[in-house]
Amino acid sequence: MTQARALFAERGFAGTSIRAIATGASVDPALVHHYFGNKDDLFLAAMAIKVDPRQEMAPVIAGGADAAGENLMWVVVKVWGDAEIRLSLLGVARGVFEPDGQQMIKDGFLGMVLGPLGKGLDLDEPERRMALVASQMFGLVILRYVLEVEPLASMSEELLVATFAPSLQRYFTGDLPN
Amino acid sequence: MTQARALFAERGFAGTSIRAIATGASVDPALVHHYFGNKDDLFLAAMAIKVDPRQEMAPVIAGGADAAGENLMWVVVKVWGDAEIRLSLLGVARGVFEPDGQQMIKDGFLGMVLGPLGKGLDLDEPERRMALVASQMFGLVILRYVLEVEPLASMSEELLVATFAPSLQRYFTGDLPN
Repeated sequence: MTQARALFAERGFAGTSIRAIATGASVDPALVHHYFGNKDDLFLAAMAIKVDPRQEMAPVIAGGADAAGENLMWVVVKVWGDAEIRLSLLGVARGVFEPDGQQMIKDGFLGMVLGPLGKGLDLDEPERRMALVASQMFGLVILRYVLEVEPLASMSEELLVATFAPSLQRYFTGDLPN
Repeated sequence: MTQARALFAERGFAGTSIRAIATGASVDPALVHHYFGNKDDLFLAAMAIKVDPRQEMAPVIAGGADAAGENLMWVVVKVWGDAEIRLSLLGVARGVFEPDGQQMIKDGFLGMVLGPLGKGLDLDEPERRMALVASQMFGLVILRYVLEVEPLASMSEELLVATFAPSLQRYFTGDLPN
């Protein structure tokens, strides 16, 4: 896994194949597939991320675009409220100022979380809308869970959802300027 | 200045006095006052920040709370659009995952930028409203200027302001849940 992580960091998600990871570890690619599943699964395992974004996004997609602001906020507070998951996500977030780390965040967060969400919700202009959603989520996570700025840090989950859901909802389905 | 920066990093803004900095540099405190002004001025000089937040916030305060969303967005795109200023701000932003750096961001950004703005605009619940404003500004800066996520990274300043001003305006003056 250390070697897989190094390869992902060096070449990015798109530039890393299961075959290359298997070769580097001197094992058969079929064995990697058997034990870790597809490349998304392998990425999550290599980065030691304690949450499966596909599983978390499924109910948000199922809830539809008109409820996505509130539903996504509940996922954010649930996932980031779990200390073990939070630590694993912070490990990735720390890379935000390093070129390798930035690629991981783009691949992992945008590629595995927001990309499929925008597609699953069948949004118009999914790239633009999901970038706006991401901008509010990133900032919220940094203020509440990293900098622990009050009163955000100790705000109840219910109030946090009620506060931010309208902003996210506008980015998901509102009229945007051109 | 290296020594002043080290003191600010070690003790935070509140815990650092001009007297302590002068003593550390073996000069008279009056001399430090004479050359650098007050503690805010000294902090900006020590951190090599190429922009004076008090000067940038003045027109936003003068424009009043009802126009603060749009006016603040224009400051954000102007300040972060300047390569030299951006580099100096990124130097501070990098500290977001380090305890010392976090204190600098809280002191510098929240203490010198957002605190006076909330007070100057005479907001109700200034602490809560400014934390919400900060959460959107932080995330936008990271997505557009650090991760350079498209289409945010190459969006025109006009479109960026039109897109985010309504979110900021709601945080400044909108009805918030309780």
